[in-house]
Amino acid sequence: MNAVLKLLHHIQVHFNFRVLAGDIGFNVHTVFLNCINELGTDEQIAKWVPLAQNYNIIGTYAQTELGHGTYLRGLETTATFDMSTQEFLINTPKISAMKWWPGDLGRSATHALVLAQLYIKGKNYGMHPFLVQIRSLHDHSPLPGITVGDIGPKMGFAHVDNGYLFLRNIRIPLQNMLSRYSQVLPDGRYVKRGSEKINYFSMILVRVNMIGEVVVGTLTKACMIAIRYSVVRRQSEFKPGAAEAKILDYQTQQGKLLPQLATVYAFHFLCPYLLDYYNLVHHEIKSGNFKSLPELHALTAGMKALVTEYSTAGVEVCRRACGGHGYSMLSGLPSLYSYVLAACTYEGENTVLYLQTARYLVKCLAMGQSGQSLPQSVAYLTSALSRRCQARDKSDFLKTEIYLDAFEHRACRLIRGAASKVQALVHSGLEQYEAWNSTSVELLEASMAHCQYIIVKVFVDTVEKLNSDPGIHISLKRLCHLFALHWIRTNAGSFLHNEYISGNQLDMVTEIYLDLLLLLRKEAVVLVDAFDYTDEQLNSALGSYDGQVYQRLFEWAQKAPENHQVNSAYEKHMKPLFHSALSKL
Amino acid sequence: MNAVLKLLHHIQVHFNFRVLAGDIGFNVHTVFLNCINELGTDEQIAKWVPLAQNYNIIGTYAQTELGHGTYLRGLETTATFDMSTQEFLINTPKISAMKWWPGDLGRSATHALVLAQLYIKGKNYGMHPFLVQIRSLHDHSPLPGITVGDIGPKMGFAHVDNGYLFLRNIRIPLQNMLSRYSQVLPDGRYVKRGSEKINYFSMILVRVNMIGEVVVGTLTKACMIAIRYSVVRRQSEFKPGAAEAKILDYQTQQGKLLPQLATVYAFHFLCPYLLDYYNLVHHEIKSGNFKSLPELHALTAGMKALVTEYSTAGVEVCRRACGGHGYSMLSGLPSLYSYVLAACTYEGENTVLYLQTARYLVKCLAMGQSGQSLPQSVAYLTSALSRRCQARDKSDFLKTEIYLDAFEHRACRLIRGAASKVQALVHSGLEQYEAWNSTSVELLEASMAHCQYIIVKVFVDTVEKLNSDPGIHISLKRLCHLFALHWIRTNAGSFLHNEYISGNQLDMVTEIYLDLLLLLRKEAVVLVDAFDYTDEQLNSALGSYDGQVYQRLFEWAQKAPENHQVNSAYEKHMKPLFHSALSKL
Repeated sequence: MNAVLKLLHHIQVHFNFRVLAGDIGFNVHTVFLNCINELGTDEQIAKWVPLAQNYNIIGTYAQTELGHGTYLRGLETTATFDMSTQEFLINTPKISAMKWWPGDLGRSATHALVLAQLYIKGKNYGMHPFLVQIRSLHDHSPLPGITVGDIGPKMGFAHVDNGYLFLRNIRIPLQNMLSRYSQVLPDGRYVKRGSEKINYFSMILVRVNMIGEVVVGTLTKACMIAIRYSVVRRQSEFKPGAAEAKILDYQTQQGKLLPQLATVYAFHFLCPYLLDYYNLVHHEIKSGNFKSLPELHALTAGMKALVTEYSTAGVEVCRRACGGHGYSMLSGLPSLYSYVLAACTYEGENTVLYLQTARYLVKCLAMGQSGQSLPQSVAYLTSALSRRCQARDKSDFLKTEIYLDAFEHRACRLIRGAASKVQALVHSGLEQYEAWNSTSVELLEASMAHCQYIIVKVFVDTVEKLNSDPGIHISLKRLCHLFALHWIRTNAGSFLHNEYISGNQLDMVTEIYLDLLLLLRKEAVVLVDAFDYTDEQLNSALGSYDGQVYQRLFEWAQKAPENHQVNSAYEKHMKPLFHSALSKL
Repeated sequence: MNAVLKLLHHIQVHFNFRVLAGDIGFNVHTVFLNCINELGTDEQIAKWVPLAQNYNIIGTYAQTELGHGTYLRGLETTATFDMSTQEFLINTPKISAMKWWPGDLGRSATHALVLAQLYIKGKNYGMHPFLVQIRSLHDHSPLPGITVGDIGPKMGFAHVDNGYLFLRNIRIPLQNMLSRYSQVLPDGRYVKRGSEKINYFSMILVRVNMIGEVVVGTLTKACMIAIRYSVVRRQSEFKPGAAEAKILDYQTQQGKLLPQLATVYAFHFLCPYLLDYYNLVHHEIKSGNFKSLPELHALTAGMKALVTEYSTAGVEVCRRACGGHGYSMLSGLPSLYSYVLAACTYEGENTVLYLQTARYLVKCLAMGQSGQSLPQSVAYLTSALSRRCQARDKSDFLKTEIYLDAFEHRACRLIRGAASKVQALVHSGLEQYEAWNSTSVELLEASMAHCQYIIVKVFVDTVEKLNSDPGIHISLKRLCHLFALHWIRTNAGSFLHNEYISGNQLDMVTEIYLDLLLLLRKEAVVLVDAFDYTDEQLNSALGSYDGQVYQRLFEWAQKAPENHQVNSAYEKHMKPLFHSALSKL
C-alpha cells in the first residue's frame, strides 16, 4: 500500500492550515476584518482594516441576541439616524435584544460590528452593520452606556470568551455604518446597491471555512485515533482457542469506523468544491452581478448543516468505538467531540439552514416547471426520472452511475413530493405559511436528500478527475462506493419507498457493502495515516503512531492531580469508621 | 388537561428514588454490598455486610481491566490457590491486566471485590470473585504489593473517583472467595452449585437499576427543560406580519421533542416490567432453579443497550433543540448529556450486549424450529408471519394490533434472515465463528428490532391495563401511537423491505404521525410537568417552572468567575497596541 501513502502529499496541500491546529484567541477578530473588507467602502477599509490588522483594536461580530438566533430579521437592536448630529443612536431596547454569544466580546474586544435594525425618520430599513467602540483604548474599561461581560461556562469551550452586550444610547458617527452596498446620506435618504442578501455574504464565507478548517479536521483526527486503537486493542475469543482478536477484525467495528473514514474523504473533497464556487460568486459580485448569490447561499446553508451533523455523529461513533477508554479525556476524543458539536448550532442552527435550502429548492422546482432554466446544482430537479434502479447483481452497485441515479431519483422525488404537498394544502384552503409548516418535516428530509446527492456526486467527480497512482485510485474508489452504499443502507426507506430499489436490490447493497468493509479493513490504517497528524496534534493516549496504548494511558493517568493530593475526607470523616473495623477483621 | 395533571401521582410512586437526585459518593460501594449478598455464603454475608453497611470499610467492584472490558472470560488477573497456606495469591500478570475504571477505587476504597481467574493446581476454573483488602484501615495507605490511583479526567465525570489497581502477590485467606455458588475446598477440590452464569447475576441487577435510576430520569429532565423552553422561546415570522412564533409551534420542533417525550413514557413503563421479571427470576434462583437466567440475561443486555442508546440520543436532540442556549452549561443540558452518555459504555458496551442478545435469539430460533417450546419473550420467533400489513387508511395505524404486528413481523424476519445467513455460510464451508462475524452487522439490526418490538409491546400492554382517568388514557394512547409510528418512520427500510408495508402505507404512517404531533403539542407541557422535578433538581436557566429564561440566563451569567477577574492580558500585551490607535480614531 505504498501507493496509498503517496496520498499524503496530495492531501497535505489542503491541510496546511489544519495542521497548525489553530486554536488562537481573537478568532472572531478575523470575521470582523472580513466583514469590513466585504461590506465597507474603500474609505472605511482604509481607515479600519490596518488598525485591526495590527491589533490596535480588537473586533467582534455582534449579531446573535439573547432572544434571537438564526432568524436575522428578528433582531431587535436598533440604530436610529439622528440627522441633527449626523449620528446613529444604537440601543438595546429590552433584555432579549442583548447581544449574546459573540466571540471575544466578553473580556477582550474594543470594537463590535453590531448588526442592528436601521431606522430613518421612523421607518425601518432592516438589518445593517455598524462599527461601535465598546471599550476605552486608554484603560480597556467599558465605555459609558455599555454593559459587557462573559456569558458563562459552555460545553467544551469553557474558557473561550463569549460575551454579552447591552447598549444604551450609544452615539456613533454616520461614517460608522458599513456602506458598500447600502448607505444613509446626510439628508436621511437611503441608497441601496445590490442585493439585500449581501449582508449574509460574509457568513457564507465563515460557513465554507469552518467546514474545512474546524469540522472535517476534527472527524479526521477522531478516525485516526479510533482506527489506530482498533488494531492495538484486542477483545474476545474470535476463533475458538486462538488469541483475542484485534477489534478492527470484527465486522461491527468495521461497520462503525470505515464509513466514517469514507466520510472524511467525501467531506475533504467537498471543501475545495465549495470554496471554488464561493470564489466564483465572489468574483461575480465584485463586478455587480448578484445572480448566483441565492444558489451559493442555499448550497452552503445545507452543506454546513449536513457536514456538521455527520461529522459530529461520526466523531461520537469513533469515540464510542473505543469503549471505556474513549470516555477518558486521555483518549483525546471527548474534547474533539465537544469541539465539533458546537458547529451544529453556531453560524446557523442546522434545522433552520436545511429549511432555507428547502425553500430554495421548492422555488427552483416551480421555476423549472414553468420552463425557466435552472442553476447547475439544481438542474436535475426537472429531469425525467428513471423508474427503477437498473442494478441486476451486486457488482452493479460498484458502478457510480447506478448509485448516483439512485441519489438523484430520491432527492428529486422527495423535493417534488414535499412541494406538491405544500401546493395541495394551499389549494385546500391553508395559508401558505401554514402549508409550509405542515410540510416542514418532509421538506427537511428532502433538503438532506439533495445535499447527500451533491456530496456523493462531488466525491464521484473528484475521484474520476484525480490523476493519481492506480493503487490510490482503487482505494479511493472503494471509499467512494462504501460512502454511497452506507448512505443508501442508512436511508433505505426513502430508496425503497416507491420501489425505485427493490428489497432484493437492497440485499445486494448490503452484500457489497460488507465486501467493501473487508477490503478496506486492510487499507484502513494507511488511509488514516495519510493525513499525517503528529502525536502532539492528536494528543491521544489511544491514537499515537507507536501503538503503545496501555503504557501511555498508565503514564498519563499517574500524572493526574488527584494522584498527588491527600484525600482530605479520610482524616475528617473516614478514619474513625475504619478504625472501628480493625477489631473485626 | 387537568386529567393529565393527575398523572403526577401515578408517576410519583415510581419516581421517589429519582427525585432524590442521588449523586452520592461511594456509588460502587452498593454494588460491592449487593455482590456479597448475592454471591456470598451465609457466613460471608454475616461477616462483611455489616462492616460495609456501617461504612467501616469502603468497597469497590474491580472487574474491568486496562486491556479487557465487556468480555469477562478475557480477564487476566489471577487468583492461584496455595494449598500449603490455605490462601489465594492474587496477581496482575501484566500491564493490560491492571484493574481500570472501578468506581471509588482510586482514592477511597479499602476493599475490592476482585474478579480473577481461579487457578487450582495449574488448572483454570474461570472467573470468580475475591475479597481483597487494598488499603490500611490504620492510615488509609495502600497495603504492600498494591499500586492504586485515579485514572485521570473523563468526559463529564471529571471529579468522580475511578481507579486503577496493580496487585503483586497479594495473599488472601481461602474464606475470601465468595462461595455461594462455587467453592474451593481446603484439599483443593472445586465444588460448583448452579450455573456459571450466576457471576453475571449481580451485573443484571445493576443494568436493570441503572435504566430506571440513571438513564430514564436524565431523558425526562432533558425533555422537561427543552419543552418548557420551547413555549417561551420565539423565533421567526410564522404568520406574515404577526409576532414571532413559539418554537414548539414549528412542526420540525415538534418532530424533535414529542417523540422524545413519548420515549420517556415508553422507557418509564419498561422499568417495572424488567424489575418484575428480575424479581421473578431472582426468586427462582434462590430456590435453585436457573432455567430463566439466559432469557433474563439476554433481555436485560439488549434493553440496557437500547435504552441507553436512545436516551443519550434523545437528550442530545433536546439539547440541540434549544439552539445556542442548549450549549450553555447554564441550560443544564450539557451535563445531563455527558452523564447519560457514559451509560452507553459502562456495565457492558452496547454492541457487545446487542450481540449477546442476538446469540440468544438465534439459539432460541433453532430450538423453536426443532419443536422445543420457547420462553415467553421469544415465543413469537416461530409464529406464522402475516404476509402484509392490513392497514387500509391512516386511522388503522392508531390500532395497536396493526403496529404491533408490524414490529413482530419485522423482528421475526430480521432474526430469521440473519440466522439463515449464518447457517448458509457454515454450509458453504466457513467456520461457525467466521460465519457469525460475517453476519454480525445484520445480527445487530435483528437484535435491535427484537428489543424495539418488546418495548412497544410493553407500552401497549401497560396503557391497556392502566385504570386511569379517561383524559389521561387518551393522552397516553397518543404517546404510545406516536412512539410506535416514530420508530416505523425512522426504521422504514426494514418495514418496506419485503413489502410488508407498502410505500402508500408508509405515507399513511407519516400523515397520522404528523397529526399526532399537532394533538400532542397541546398536551406537551402538562405531560412533562407531570414528572414534577423541582427547579433545583433541573438546575436549568431554560427549564424553570416560571419560564423566566432570559432574566435567569443574564443573572446566572453575571455570576461567572470570568466577570469578576481582571483581564491580565490587557496590561501586559494589549495596552501598548491599543494606545497607538488613540491618535488614529
